[in-house]
Amino acid sequence: MSLPKLQIACDHNDLASALADIKAVGDVVDIIEAGTILLLQDGAEVVRCFRALYPDKLIVADPKCADAGGTVAKNLKEAGANFMTCICSATIPTMKAAAKEVDEVQVELYGDWTYDQAQAWLDAGIHQAIYHQSRDALLAGETWGEKDLTKVKKLVDMGFKVSVTGGLKVEILDLFKGVEVYTFIAGRGITQAEDPKQAAIDFQNKIKEIWG
Amino acid sequence: MSLPKLQIACDHNDLASALADIKAVGDVVDIIEAGTILLLQDGAEVVRCFRALYPDKLIVADPKCADAGGTVAKNLKEAGANFMTCICSATIPTMKAAAKEVDEVQVELYGDWTYDQAQAWLDAGIHQAIYHQSRDALLAGETWGEKDLTKVKKLVDMGFKVSVTGGLKVEILDLFKGVEVYTFIAGRGITQAEDPKQAAIDFQNKIKEIWG
Repeated sequence: MSLPKLQIACDHNDLASALADIKAVGDVVDIIEAGTILLLQDGAEVVRCFRALYPDKLIVADPKCADAGGTVAKNLKEAGANFMTCICSATIPTMKAAAKEVDEVQVELYGDWTYDQAQAWLDAGIHQAIYHQSRDALLAGETWGEKDLTKVKKLVDMGFKVSVTGGLKVEILDLFKGVEVYTFIAGRGITQAEDPKQAAIDFQNKIKEIWG
Repeated sequence: MSLPKLQIACDHNDLASALADIKAVGDVVDIIEAGTILLLQDGAEVVRCFRALYPDKLIVADPKCADAGGTVAKNLKEAGANFMTCICSATIPTMKAAAKEVDEVQVELYGDWTYDQAQAWLDAGIHQAIYHQSRDALLAGETWGEKDLTKVKKLVDMGFKVSVTGGLKVEILDLFKGVEVYTFIAGRGITQAEDPKQAAIDFQNKIKEIWG
């Protein structure tokens, strides 16, 4: 079982504060994500800055693209992104159009998606999925549990590289022991820690402890 | 039956060319939209520019928000947006969080939404929906027809203010005769016309002819 990657999600409200956090943890994480909130605030310049600072890292742009996949993907790829997210309710033509432009498309699983749809994504050549706890659902009191694990396992068994995200803390990783998670995506769990760099190192050490 | 509004969708790849098009038709249309592609390129600055140029127009920001509804909506409202879109697969907490910040949330209908979900949006206080032909679906050869009209009518009967969009041309408006459409959203049908201002006037005249 290969080692899950660690991704830092930058869902800041402005580029400057995102850059400050990235400076602290950019060398520790495997993937740097330009989050939806930040992209909508400062546009593709966010991706350009991340790429300029970290020419050799994987960079994810997270527009949760629902339409015009080809154009959005082309723009973000030009800015420097490797991967781009599409929302699960996007049509197959949208996902395929995006997949032609970026290295890989990641399907963001929100709301009432089905395994039949997931199979259609695989059939269309889309092999990455992101399993979420919605931030607003977390705010409404939901948490990680067996129901999530079952879904993640099934997606992995289907052949997806599955990233998981939403309120992740180091101790939650134990829940995923034995599951071939592709990437753990953390945001505030790292950036709002007292020592963000140490928090990122703690995540990486925990990943090595469980999957190494 | 009240007169449907006309909305110009700016799905440009850069702010400058969007501003050039808006200058031509901004006084003719009722609503100006900062489209997804453009928001992802230049961020909230797009909305700030539109608001500065047209202080009295309705302005829509179209992030197709799937999560973090409160933060995204707060940012776009501060930039000057009246309405903001959420993707239909967003959770109810996301839509409600967004609705607290902007004047009105518009649900973007993509993929496999259901009327049960639509009723849940109404119950949550969300009263606007946008019925689409996906741009990528249009590129794949789909077109407007009776199946679309049936869905739009049902949504209107349920109590939604329904906007329709996707490859709209003046002659397609006849299809909607007798249906209480809230807004017709046109993009390239106006901006890529030989005379964009005249194209916008043609849309408005057709709306008056049918619904006046």
